[in-house]
Amino acid sequence: MTGTDHTQISQAVKESNRKSPVVILVKPQMGENIGAAARAMLNCGLDRLRLVSPRDGWPNERAEAMSSGALAKMPPVEVFDSTAEAIRDCHYVMATTARPRDMVKPVYNGEGAAQEAARRGEAGEKVAFLFGGERSGLDNDDVALSHAVITVPLNPSFSSLNLGQAVLLMAYEWSKISFKQTKRECPTGDTLPASHEQLHGLMERLEGELETHHFFRSEGLKPTMIRNLRNLLVRADMTEQEVSTFHGIISALTGKKAPLKKQP
Amino acid sequence: MTGTDHTQISQAVKESNRKSPVVILVKPQMGENIGAAARAMLNCGLDRLRLVSPRDGWPNERAEAMSSGALAKMPPVEVFDSTAEAIRDCHYVMATTARPRDMVKPVYNGEGAAQEAARRGEAGEKVAFLFGGERSGLDNDDVALSHAVITVPLNPSFSSLNLGQAVLLMAYEWSKISFKQTKRECPTGDTLPASHEQLHGLMERLEGELETHHFFRSEGLKPTMIRNLRNLLVRADMTEQEVSTFHGIISALTGKKAPLKKQP
Repeated sequence: MTGTDHTQISQAVKESNRKSPVVILVKPQMGENIGAAARAMLNCGLDRLRLVSPRDGWPNERAEAMSSGALAKMPPVEVFDSTAEAIRDCHYVMATTARPRDMVKPVYNGEGAAQEAARRGEAGEKVAFLFGGERSGLDNDDVALSHAVITVPLNPSFSSLNLGQAVLLMAYEWSKISFKQTKRECPTGDTLPASHEQLHGLMERLEGELETHHFFRSEGLKPTMIRNLRNLLVRADMTEQEVSTFHGIISALTGKKAPLKKQP
Repeated sequence: MTGTDHTQISQAVKESNRKSPVVILVKPQMGENIGAAARAMLNCGLDRLRLVSPRDGWPNERAEAMSSGALAKMPPVEVFDSTAEAIRDCHYVMATTARPRDMVKPVYNGEGAAQEAARRGEAGEKVAFLFGGERSGLDNDDVALSHAVITVPLNPSFSSLNLGQAVLLMAYEWSKISFKQTKRECPTGDTLPASHEQLHGLMERLEGELETHHFFRSEGLKPTMIRNLRNLLVRADMTEQEVSTFHGIISALTGKKAPLKKQP
């Protein structure tokens, strides 16, 4: 009853993370790449990193530096001597490979793999994404231990991804499922989009001033020119504030104040 | 009529690249990040890179090293003094930002932006993805010059992406449109998936041998046990080769050869 119950909080965090995949780097060589992988993971909301026989041991100063603080914010990295040990508590292991391995095994692209991982995570399974070292990726024995393969279609004449970049792609695909995505939006902040009435008032004022200033050279072309102008003004999706600014521009250029009353 | 017409070939390459977006890095600082960006671009089939006032000038040895050969395979990087100059020939400019800028402008996520870029590219427009430097990203004047903003939803408490990683995300989203994607497949290579007849033959042989070896403790449980076994064998999606291997396993364990004739 006194203060925060940290046990409960850490339990809640644990529950939420339980659904997200574990990232396992098998025999990674450069600390920089481990750090970049950690940063990419945390960018995308993943925080369980395991290493199998890192070449330069663990911890690694270059990894810390390259992680931009990510490693310090994540649970401790776990280090194992073999892939089999690193995946011992996992229910579904997905091996990333750049090239086909002639093994009969489901092959997912990045998006398909993330969806499968999310589905299994929701069902309580612990899923692992397995990545090989810089020189030649996963060896065939590691792939044989895995339930599925992930192969991201890339430029066939330049397909070798940096390790940190490969981890980012999978972490990113996973984040697309867990963070709200909106393909396109146009927030207007504190100001509202202009109503049609406000826009119409602006159009009529502008057209009136253009008439007065002999902008429309011929009566025959005038309807088309007006239609084109209106298309432009509508397409701009103006805000209330921008309509008001535009009135100010007309006032400045003509030397006449905007009419106080809205045009009918 | 004699030899290859290189003019035509380079024209064809030019045509295909004309549809893909230009990547512009504004005031990038570290050569390593420029190189990583170039490598990520070429991984994903993009090859037009422009720089605005790179801190350490251009060319840059660290960039060359980090690009793993990508820079040598791409058309020469173009360098400009200002963002306005770098986007002069572009029809649609999309500015990547990690944080909202309180500007009234369409905001795309990664996927939406790539689709918009592809649509405009197909229509003959030159589209640019604009990235800011490492320290603070694009400044507001650069964003104001852009038609739209790209903001990728990431971990709100750790959202700052490395420059090379940011370029990869957009290049990857673009590649997902241009390279064939299959969410899941299960290629069986030279061997075919087992037919139901082959699988059924295996099931009947296994069940017969288990009967002979008193595996089914009670007649009452036998139907359920057989059903579970059959579920397992069907779920494995066995190939012809694997059915044959499994017959070999039964032969080895029982000391009896597989029947030459298929079971009825």
